[in-house]
Amino acid sequence: VSSGEGNTKRIIPVILSGGSGTRLWPLSRKGRPKQMLPLVGDRSMLQVTAARAARRELFAAPLIVTSAGQAAQVAAQLGDGVRLILEPCARNTAPAIALAALSVADDDLLLVMPSDHLISDPEGFVGAVELGLPLALGGMLVIFGVRPTRPETGFGYIRRGEAVGDGVFRVERFLEKPDLAAATAFLADGRYDWNAGIFLFTAGAFLQALETHAPDIAEAARRAMGDSRSAGSVSPQAEIFSAIRSESIDRAVIERAANVVVVPMDVGWSDVGSWQALHAVSAADGTGNAVSGPATLLDTSGCLIRSDGPQVMAIGVHNLAIVAMGDAILVVPLDQSQRVGDAVALLEKGAAGSD
Amino acid sequence: VSSGEGNTKRIIPVILSGGSGTRLWPLSRKGRPKQMLPLVGDRSMLQVTAARAARRELFAAPLIVTSAGQAAQVAAQLGDGVRLILEPCARNTAPAIALAALSVADDDLLLVMPSDHLISDPEGFVGAVELGLPLALGGMLVIFGVRPTRPETGFGYIRRGEAVGDGVFRVERFLEKPDLAAATAFLADGRYDWNAGIFLFTAGAFLQALETHAPDIAEAARRAMGDSRSAGSVSPQAEIFSAIRSESIDRAVIERAANVVVVPMDVGWSDVGSWQALHAVSAADGTGNAVSGPATLLDTSGCLIRSDGPQVMAIGVHNLAIVAMGDAILVVPLDQSQRVGDAVALLEKGAAGSD
Repeated sequence: VSSGEGNTKRIIPVILSGGSGTRLWPLSRKGRPKQMLPLVGDRSMLQVTAARAARRELFAAPLIVTSAGQAAQVAAQLGDGVRLILEPCARNTAPAIALAALSVADDDLLLVMPSDHLISDPEGFVGAVELGLPLALGGMLVIFGVRPTRPETGFGYIRRGEAVGDGVFRVERFLEKPDLAAATAFLADGRYDWNAGIFLFTAGAFLQALETHAPDIAEAARRAMGDSRSAGSVSPQAEIFSAIRSESIDRAVIERAANVVVVPMDVGWSDVGSWQALHAVSAADGTGNAVSGPATLLDTSGCLIRSDGPQVMAIGVHNLAIVAMGDAILVVPLDQSQRVGDAVALLEKGAAGSD
Repeated sequence: VSSGEGNTKRIIPVILSGGSGTRLWPLSRKGRPKQMLPLVGDRSMLQVTAARAARRELFAAPLIVTSAGQAAQVAAQLGDGVRLILEPCARNTAPAIALAALSVADDDLLLVMPSDHLISDPEGFVGAVELGLPLALGGMLVIFGVRPTRPETGFGYIRRGEAVGDGVFRVERFLEKPDLAAATAFLADGRYDWNAGIFLFTAGAFLQALETHAPDIAEAARRAMGDSRSAGSVSPQAEIFSAIRSESIDRAVIERAANVVVVPMDVGWSDVGSWQALHAVSAADGTGNAVSGPATLLDTSGCLIRSDGPQVMAIGVHNLAIVAMGDAILVVPLDQSQRVGDAVALLEKGAAGSD
């Protein structure tokens, strides 16, 4: 099996672009997911992600795992050079990455990245990837850990064990999303990193671990792909793929495998998973307001204000997100912005109920 | 001089509809002033005001003092039966009422009302008017006082003296907008009423007082009207009218005249002069939210939410006004909603500056 034309085993970025979250509603919506939007600056999160792994001596053209519905948007944003794997439906990250691994050679190196995260220090990130490279080539599953900056309860954590190389550590333990007390202890301890969902391994090492720890997923993914390894876009068989167990790579493989190592990194990572997170990575004025679009502010501070058209007037409010996009307006305290998903569910339920 | 066809001296409602305030921005705007809008219920404030003085055995058809720019809207809302006085420009209430008084007979009774206030007990209001009637017919200037419900610093106050009739009192003193300490003392005292800008007098009594206390206004208004007393609409001469001193009836006449009496009333009056005031007179749900338009609320209370289209989502916010109208969105704590005018001025200045 060969991965193609003159590839001297450069790393293949695998960008997971299947998401359709509602946490940044009304900016992100069904059909207009977060990764397709420019959240900070002019380029979309997907474009920024692709650019992060674009140094040609190190990286090959990316492989994008996405849905058929997003294929045209992805192609429009990244150009024709990318290869697409079109998932018939969303089955979480383990099946998605299995498709990617099955579409390349076993000794191809894969750098798996979510499509909707920010890294403010992309050179530092590439440096971290280079630290992990020898171990990935040696058959290890490399995960990248993010130095925590707050007692975040929304992420999984990785506890470092002893060093196994320059800046690379054995993983002592994976921890599910902790409560605040545990998260505070993790932050103070210093040996815990956030699991950012970024991985480096050979396709073969991943598939072997998947075979071992989640053979049902490995087998079904193989059947769904059939003989469809190809340099072009790949469409797995819908009937088989949709029957696969929906599972994350973490639960299916990474938390179970013995050959996992972690490369901690401090590269300005953000999942931009809430309006508060977006506010934190946005340029703000002297009073902490990050404003995009027409706005008039009076005695207003610490706010994220974003409008795609309407004139926003904010008076005497602090630490709020005020977002006007399309036919929708959101007002929420930044420190409660993790509740947006719940409210969107409420809205959709209400809309369904009133039909 | 005759006031017209078979009028047996019913009271002529004089509705002042020249305002173009910005305190309810973005609902009220230039060209779409508050009185033209339905703030509570289906009818506009102007329609509600006209309906308040429509009992045919007591009231004649109203006389509307407005601007040429609003004439078509007024006619559309009130029908052809009304008489219009079209001010060439706004010169505050003293000149406006002078025009009305000059367009009727001296012995016609005028009930002067702002066009943008609410009275939840219109029958009680008519009862108050009837209390004032004998004194107005006797040549007195009758002002209606509103029983204060809070230490409001935005209104003028009237201090009652001794009773001069059933529910009618001599005015001991007029007081300009007080500070909070004074307003609190007035509220506790019980002898102070808000000056709601509602008056009852004969045209002749008013004109005589105007002649005495503001002869320049009386003389110029007379010249601007020329011989234009008419049953139809009246357009005073612009050049003369625009040169008139801009002054309120209170300062020009009422605070100076000796023949002023007050009829205190407790009839659910509101000037609806802020989003907070509108919230107070709006129907609210069990958590104090007054909602008009599509909205999804999560852990939100005490808010006024108004949208003419966009879906509003409010999460974890309390006692805010959130208003989406046309191409504008306002977010302000209700208890700071008196600052909206300042912010609109800022917006207009910014818009002017950026051209």
